[in-house]
Amino acid sequence: MAILIRGPAVVGRPGEEVLPKADVIVEGRRFEAVLPGGGAEGNFDFVVDGEGCLLIPGLVNAHTHLAMTLLRNVAPDVPLERWLADHIWPRERRLRPQDVYWGTLLGLAEAIRSGTTAVADMYFFMDEVAGAVEEAGVRALLSYGVVALTPDRIEPELAEAERFVRSWDGAAEGRIRAALSPHAPYTCPAAVWKRATALAHELKIPLHTHLAETWEEVERFRAETGRSPAEWLEELGALSVPLIAAHCVHVSEKDIEILAAHGASAVHCPTSNLRLGCGIAPVAELLAGGVNVALGTDGAASAGDLNLVEEVRLAALLAKARAGPAALPPAEALRLATAGGAAALGLGKEGGTIEPGRRADGVLVSTEGPHFCPGGDPVADLVYAGQGLDVRAVFVDGRPLLLGGEFQALDLEKILARCRRVAHRLRP
Amino acid sequence: MAILIRGPAVVGRPGEEVLPKADVIVEGRRFEAVLPGGGAEGNFDFVVDGEGCLLIPGLVNAHTHLAMTLLRNVAPDVPLERWLADHIWPRERRLRPQDVYWGTLLGLAEAIRSGTTAVADMYFFMDEVAGAVEEAGVRALLSYGVVALTPDRIEPELAEAERFVRSWDGAAEGRIRAALSPHAPYTCPAAVWKRATALAHELKIPLHTHLAETWEEVERFRAETGRSPAEWLEELGALSVPLIAAHCVHVSEKDIEILAAHGASAVHCPTSNLRLGCGIAPVAELLAGGVNVALGTDGAASAGDLNLVEEVRLAALLAKARAGPAALPPAEALRLATAGGAAALGLGKEGGTIEPGRRADGVLVSTEGPHFCPGGDPVADLVYAGQGLDVRAVFVDGRPLLLGGEFQALDLEKILARCRRVAHRLRP
Repeated sequence: MAILIRGPAVVGRPGEEVLPKADVIVEGRRFEAVLPGGGAEGNFDFVVDGEGCLLIPGLVNAHTHLAMTLLRNVAPDVPLERWLADHIWPRERRLRPQDVYWGTLLGLAEAIRSGTTAVADMYFFMDEVAGAVEEAGVRALLSYGVVALTPDRIEPELAEAERFVRSWDGAAEGRIRAALSPHAPYTCPAAVWKRATALAHELKIPLHTHLAETWEEVERFRAETGRSPAEWLEELGALSVPLIAAHCVHVSEKDIEILAAHGASAVHCPTSNLRLGCGIAPVAELLAGGVNVALGTDGAASAGDLNLVEEVRLAALLAKARAGPAALPPAEALRLATAGGAAALGLGKEGGTIEPGRRADGVLVSTEGPHFCPGGDPVADLVYAGQGLDVRAVFVDGRPLLLGGEFQALDLEKILARCRRVAHRLRP
Repeated sequence: MAILIRGPAVVGRPGEEVLPKADVIVEGRRFEAVLPGGGAEGNFDFVVDGEGCLLIPGLVNAHTHLAMTLLRNVAPDVPLERWLADHIWPRERRLRPQDVYWGTLLGLAEAIRSGTTAVADMYFFMDEVAGAVEEAGVRALLSYGVVALTPDRIEPELAEAERFVRSWDGAAEGRIRAALSPHAPYTCPAAVWKRATALAHELKIPLHTHLAETWEEVERFRAETGRSPAEWLEELGALSVPLIAAHCVHVSEKDIEILAAHGASAVHCPTSNLRLGCGIAPVAELLAGGVNVALGTDGAASAGDLNLVEEVRLAALLAKARAGPAALPPAEALRLATAGGAAALGLGKEGGTIEPGRRADGVLVSTEGPHFCPGGDPVADLVYAGQGLDVRAVFVDGRPLLLGGEFQALDLEKILARCRRVAHRLRP
């Protein structure tokens, strides 16, 4: 299929300024040409009007639990431990596989509506998650979250994680990749990490985990092991494979050196970190130390939504609050959610930019609202004024998932109705 | 004119839970009835479909400089002093009265589009600002910003401020009220504050100023006067009239006691404060100390936009980052932008809630997007997932300014075109 995207400004070409107007040709699954000034000719299966829009690389949500949309804003403002014990876990215990399927579809609908083309999701009933991803048309790195608080859980948890990888890695014409997810250093013993690392080497897949999310967790871990979680993972050899480390709020200078030396990615989840009182991750320091930084929403139960446009803005604002007004300029903040996310998900050479030969994962954002006027710096306007609902069109692998703000592959009304019914049933 | 708003959930009735469904009748400029469950009958000039929406009190932007939309995101990320000297002031010196008129209309369009019904604006060429407010249909508290860094500026600045008040206070059928705005304690000597306070008493109007925005400013002020800015204002008697104090980032416990004792309002501007590296205002502490807290965007040059939906969310998140996950629950965060803002602007008995007899300043927010599903707690969903573009309808004094997302009183295309032209001319 050949598509012409007519006339948008183009953002996110590597090392180049914004093109104020171009015609962009998509051929099959890839960008075929970017023609500055426009003037494309030829036969196209269809033409998308991109006038008055920015074309940006698809946004990557590098850490989420999509099906937690079913628990959106449950008991807001209850402190973390009570929130989990009294409100989240009782509902999660009631979740059936089909519920996770519908909750994941809801999360994907919300993600697509706000410009996300790829997600890294970690949860359970992952076959249903993968089924929803296949149906929705996005790109995803999926993993079963291994929690092994007692020795008897090690084998069954790892077996399920491995089964999922072997079933789904490479599925949906390559849009689905699998990872292994020991949940965190403090919830999985060394044996889990060693086995998962060996398996990741064998299967050529990354690890995806939670790292240094709360101060208490890191202090307790240091007291028990004499090491920071990152130091401990390095000693175990777990950084010998690509690691996606969500949160990284409480990392030391030495931790940053370790993550950088091994090419690990840190996933900044600013909304979730603020809301749960975890703190503000040292993004400027991570970037200065050479760590690849991506953005994530975490689950909607705590974050409230799955809107990366907001996470980009919040990342920019919080970096300035920590490191001064010059920290994390707009283009760099946007890069975390595009090229940074693509690199974290192992798509570094395939995605994250708009250029010929790359996967055609792109998003058209309307700049016709008053909040984009007068428009001297469209990237700054997108970062500081843009909204998820400004997104007009979304393409993944050259396939349109959203056009004119309308879903092309998903039946939104059906998803909403099913999820409302499930949420009703989950109430304790 | 009689309007029926059919079927929305209603938020912001004082001391009451959300009404899941009601018919709301507007008669003339006021809410006439709220009928739980619906079933309104009678003759109406028109009926607005509120099914699938929340009806909330109009949002109040209690500190802004609307015409700075013309300078939106100019030189993002340049440290404050260089930003002002090299980028903002050179452009502001080129502003003509008509430019401020168009820039204010742009700001009002953006504000209305995201659910704002009232603003407190402080700038210059205020006749043009007032003209734009009259045309756009919103409610406003307007003031000329007095800056008197040298003694010779005291008289002309105060004369202009007084002239504006006498020309415009009570205009536009009472939608426009005027205030006096010594810009800040560090930019206006005691003589300005004393004269302004006396005049405010005489004219029965409030003062609107900037207070304790940056740490450096407060430390310098303490070094020079031996007092905090709030202590100094109290000693001068400036708190004997209602005071709207923007920012209040660096206020002490004693300052909070002073503000509370005199019934002053603090206006929290979270985006601007983060972006300019000023810090995070102690909102939980101000509220606990009995200070009325409102929300503001500040100008779009630094904030990037004029979207209070985002400021509500950011206020909630930052309060938790400072004071733990239980701080500032969703209903309280929303209240800052509704009843808190109304109280700051002197509308406490007239606005800020949806109830019979109050001014019909209301906003319909669609909850039909995936980000509002499954919808167990609509106020939490609005605060943590809502977007400005979810706003479907806006009423001020019972007059519809936005219906179905479309402007009823403003010619948006004309405003955008004029503002683009002005911004082009302003470039140094």
